[in-house]
Amino acid sequence: MAVNLYIPPESNIFTVAGIEIGTAEAGIRKANRRDLTVFRLSEGSSVAGVFTQNRFRAAPVQVCEAHLATDQGVRALVINTGNANAGTGDSGLHASRETCKALASLLNITPAQVLPFSTGVILEPLPLDRLVAGLPAAVDSLDDNNWFAAAHSIMTTDTQPKIVSQRVALGNKTITITGISKGAGMIRPNMATMLGYLATDAGIAPALLKEMAPDIANRSFNRITVDGDTSTNDSFIVMATGKSGVQIDSKSDPLYAQLYAALADAATELAQKIVRDAEGATKFMTIQVEQAKTTEEALKVAYAVAQSPLVKTAFFASDPNLGRILCAIGYAGITDLDVSGIKLWLGDVLVASKGERHPDYQEADGQRVMKEAEIVVRIELGRGDVSDTVYTCDFSHEYVSINADYRS
Amino acid sequence: MAVNLYIPPESNIFTVAGIEIGTAEAGIRKANRRDLTVFRLSEGSSVAGVFTQNRFRAAPVQVCEAHLATDQGVRALVINTGNANAGTGDSGLHASRETCKALASLLNITPAQVLPFSTGVILEPLPLDRLVAGLPAAVDSLDDNNWFAAAHSIMTTDTQPKIVSQRVALGNKTITITGISKGAGMIRPNMATMLGYLATDAGIAPALLKEMAPDIANRSFNRITVDGDTSTNDSFIVMATGKSGVQIDSKSDPLYAQLYAALADAATELAQKIVRDAEGATKFMTIQVEQAKTTEEALKVAYAVAQSPLVKTAFFASDPNLGRILCAIGYAGITDLDVSGIKLWLGDVLVASKGERHPDYQEADGQRVMKEAEIVVRIELGRGDVSDTVYTCDFSHEYVSINADYRS
Repeated sequence: MAVNLYIPPESNIFTVAGIEIGTAEAGIRKANRRDLTVFRLSEGSSVAGVFTQNRFRAAPVQVCEAHLATDQGVRALVINTGNANAGTGDSGLHASRETCKALASLLNITPAQVLPFSTGVILEPLPLDRLVAGLPAAVDSLDDNNWFAAAHSIMTTDTQPKIVSQRVALGNKTITITGISKGAGMIRPNMATMLGYLATDAGIAPALLKEMAPDIANRSFNRITVDGDTSTNDSFIVMATGKSGVQIDSKSDPLYAQLYAALADAATELAQKIVRDAEGATKFMTIQVEQAKTTEEALKVAYAVAQSPLVKTAFFASDPNLGRILCAIGYAGITDLDVSGIKLWLGDVLVASKGERHPDYQEADGQRVMKEAEIVVRIELGRGDVSDTVYTCDFSHEYVSINADYRS
Repeated sequence: MAVNLYIPPESNIFTVAGIEIGTAEAGIRKANRRDLTVFRLSEGSSVAGVFTQNRFRAAPVQVCEAHLATDQGVRALVINTGNANAGTGDSGLHASRETCKALASLLNITPAQVLPFSTGVILEPLPLDRLVAGLPAAVDSLDDNNWFAAAHSIMTTDTQPKIVSQRVALGNKTITITGISKGAGMIRPNMATMLGYLATDAGIAPALLKEMAPDIANRSFNRITVDGDTSTNDSFIVMATGKSGVQIDSKSDPLYAQLYAALADAATELAQKIVRDAEGATKFMTIQVEQAKTTEEALKVAYAVAQSPLVKTAFFASDPNLGRILCAIGYAGITDLDVSGIKLWLGDVLVASKGERHPDYQEADGQRVMKEAEIVVRIELGRGDVSDTVYTCDFSHEYVSINADYRS
């Protein structure tokens, strides 16, 4: 049911020199599914991460941050599905640390060189024994060709694997960027049950990568929303192995801008794939707010529209009930908003201006746009020159079914 | 499908001396339904109102505020369903003013003594001719016994009429309080497609009533949420005719506190009825936040929980997926929240403490509470001594159906 979610053929997935991936069935929650994924990174790789802003940060998120802070150089990631190890207190932290210890010993590295990730049900103890018992099989299967398998094995309520892969000419060399993501609900700014892993064989100085990671997240994973829920486990990791021979150490490098844009584009594609595969989604909507005074107010309006259940159900019904969009703009929290300065476009159709329906607007035109699977809502606020964009989806019966049944 | 919504027998609805009500079929949107309601108030009545904070304020809301500001003394209300006259610009304002003028001429009062209200589809022109043509029939039917008819004729997607009526001993006299409300979706703080009319035959000085109205709204209509959408038309009106002989002119009157409490209780009951009849609701949830530092932070947490689609779908499924509640508390926006100080209760069951599942918690206990139609979620934040409460409902298939089909 995903909306125009492109799954590249396996032959178009480029390996990233310096990265191997292994998967295994650990039976974390259900039997007979690959629920454990291990990444091994070559020595000298740079790694940076962006994590959830939920105050209930899951145990693995806390351990990730602690391990990154030791600056020992990340050499491995371990990801389990089926259990988020969130709301699990000290025993959850212990389980997450033990997971790192077990993988470190198999790979002959230190525990602080391992970053752990968990996704799934929260408030349930992580079955540490089963997880650790599954690690040797995952390590045995390490191979640089396993990106596709990993895109599958990190899925939870996702219906499709999410993967991007591209080669980019940088100066006189070519670099590779390949990434995977997962997430289908509980998705909103500052991420969600969202995991994203983006790797390149370009070399990037650790300090620079640390600066780039939040910027990339703000252009991609922090611009999507499904249901406004932000999870306890969101994590986005960028890895740079340096194996391509390209090395970027500062923003003043003439190749920096190109590298940044390529990584941000790949991250945006991964983020959009999450919306395309959102729980129950039948439409992909781009909410573009223009002429705002500040980014903050552009985003307030974009999220008010993108998160309104009434707007989302109207899109599900292909009903150009555009008053619901105006209504959401009105309660977005801009207290001095002059509604007479607003223009609202649905695709190429000018729907409203001066606080009312545009005189030339015909319902048939609105209907035509609403029937598309991809819809751009453009809002001109008439207050300034700042623009921002949020991606979202509609709200369907299927969403309720999936979330009412998730644990049964 | 409403949740425990009590409809008193018609014999228990007390008339309010000084208030007559008439209804009519004006064919605003659909034929053969009473969609027009008129209130006539006796001379000398005090009237105060609280209106939507949406920046797109519908035409009737703007006219109400302007008319109240003239201080000519309100003598009539006119309410239509089928069309909200919102997002209709200058022509909408004109239509709303003409409505008042037409009713004023029929009742021999001034247009500024009339308050107009509209609810229904937005961004469509109000069919002024049909509305005005319906007024004589509504006026002809004016009668103090029409509260029940009015509770019906202001309904839109409501499945049940919402009405409260009580007699309260005040000193050595008895006063009557009777009220009606409507609204089923697009309901949240600062009200929604919410109309509420509360009348008493107590006399209240105009300046005092103006002070009381927002306080009453904050204890009732501003503490409910269905889907987080705030409409363009929300209005809450309190009317005091003085016909009982009781007259309260200041807060220092020994009877004031009792009168205030009686009015606030009636308003709370009217507000809760809206949640009980919310679109698709199968459960009525009370979200009680305690030990907050401020009211603002108590409400942030209460609304984050009450508006999370994931929490709401879990309640629909009677699934004690309480991690979703913790998650919502975590993203409520209290940036220095220490989750280890939080306690979460589901009914009488302590579910979580110290950032994790409580050791004594049994899933069966959670399940037992979740199966009830009325559920109290109690959250102790461990930060201060401020409490606040929000009322909400679950999120079902029916909600999506109703909102996807509303205009078809």
